[in-house]
Amino acid sequence: MLPRTYEDQNCSIARALEVLGDRWTILVMREAFMRVRRFDDFQRNLGVARNVLTDRLARLVEEGILVRVPYQDRPARFEYRLTEKGLDLWPIMMALLQWGDRHYPPEAGRPRVVRHRDCGGEVTRHLTCEKCGAELGPRDVVAEPGPGADALAAA
Amino acid sequence: MLPRTYEDQNCSIARALEVLGDRWTILVMREAFMRVRRFDDFQRNLGVARNVLTDRLARLVEEGILVRVPYQDRPARFEYRLTEKGLDLWPIMMALLQWGDRHYPPEAGRPRVVRHRDCGGEVTRHLTCEKCGAELGPRDVVAEPGPGADALAAA
Repeated sequence: MLPRTYEDQNCSIARALEVLGDRWTILVMREAFMRVRRFDDFQRNLGVARNVLTDRLARLVEEGILVRVPYQDRPARFEYRLTEKGLDLWPIMMALLQWGDRHYPPEAGRPRVVRHRDCGGEVTRHLTCEKCGAELGPRDVVAEPGPGADALAAA
Repeated sequence: MLPRTYEDQNCSIARALEVLGDRWTILVMREAFMRVRRFDDFQRNLGVARNVLTDRLARLVEEGILVRVPYQDRPARFEYRLTEKGLDLWPIMMALLQWGDRHYPPEAGRPRVVRHRDCGGEVTRHLTCEKCGAELGPRDVVAEPGPGADALAAA
């Protein structure tokens, strides 16, 4: 655990880490950016224990990063959608993805490639489109199957 | 622990998280980007147990993110410097800092502000200078005391 010293409470990186907490939380957010919204889909994609997933989703809702929205009445069913605060995590997700791609390239190639929706260019480290130069945000991109997608599907 | 499923091994975000691991690791990296290089300085700034710090530094050296360099002979002393792979973590650190600044602004104001060394402009979410528009990297910026720096010093 991090100590709750004044210094750490006063540092924005430490604050961000307190909220994002553990790796499951960030993988839940990865799925959310892949348009996953329902409990069973998060659970299946991540292979995470249901109680752990319940806990992480509740924490993300509490922090205002996801919002729980009813989509069916009988029985009552809910889905989890990214808030603006959640969408603001996009630069962190892209930076993690790019660093992992660069320094730990999967043998089979990247399973997913994030592209500018309009022109198909990839995202630079400056979160611009490598092809047309547009400044990109989470709503401007799509994740497409990459060279390693087959290996992923076969698993 | 994350399961070692094929899917997770095949995802660059999961790989990055495996390496960055816990929050102490990222706070060690924060200090490294603040030009901290010596064990005792890391230890004092973070208030972390020495065995935990030893473990995290060893892991970062093993991953090639930091390199251990002798700076004195008798007695032998070493310092830890960022490698190119370590410097590549800069977008992740900046994204965490910016998200924390935006959504959890410290009451006393930000303790540190990262500025373009040449013109003093702040760093945008596109890792450019808000003032002159230059594309920025870790060697182009300095961290200066912000409005909350006094509170930090008084702690």
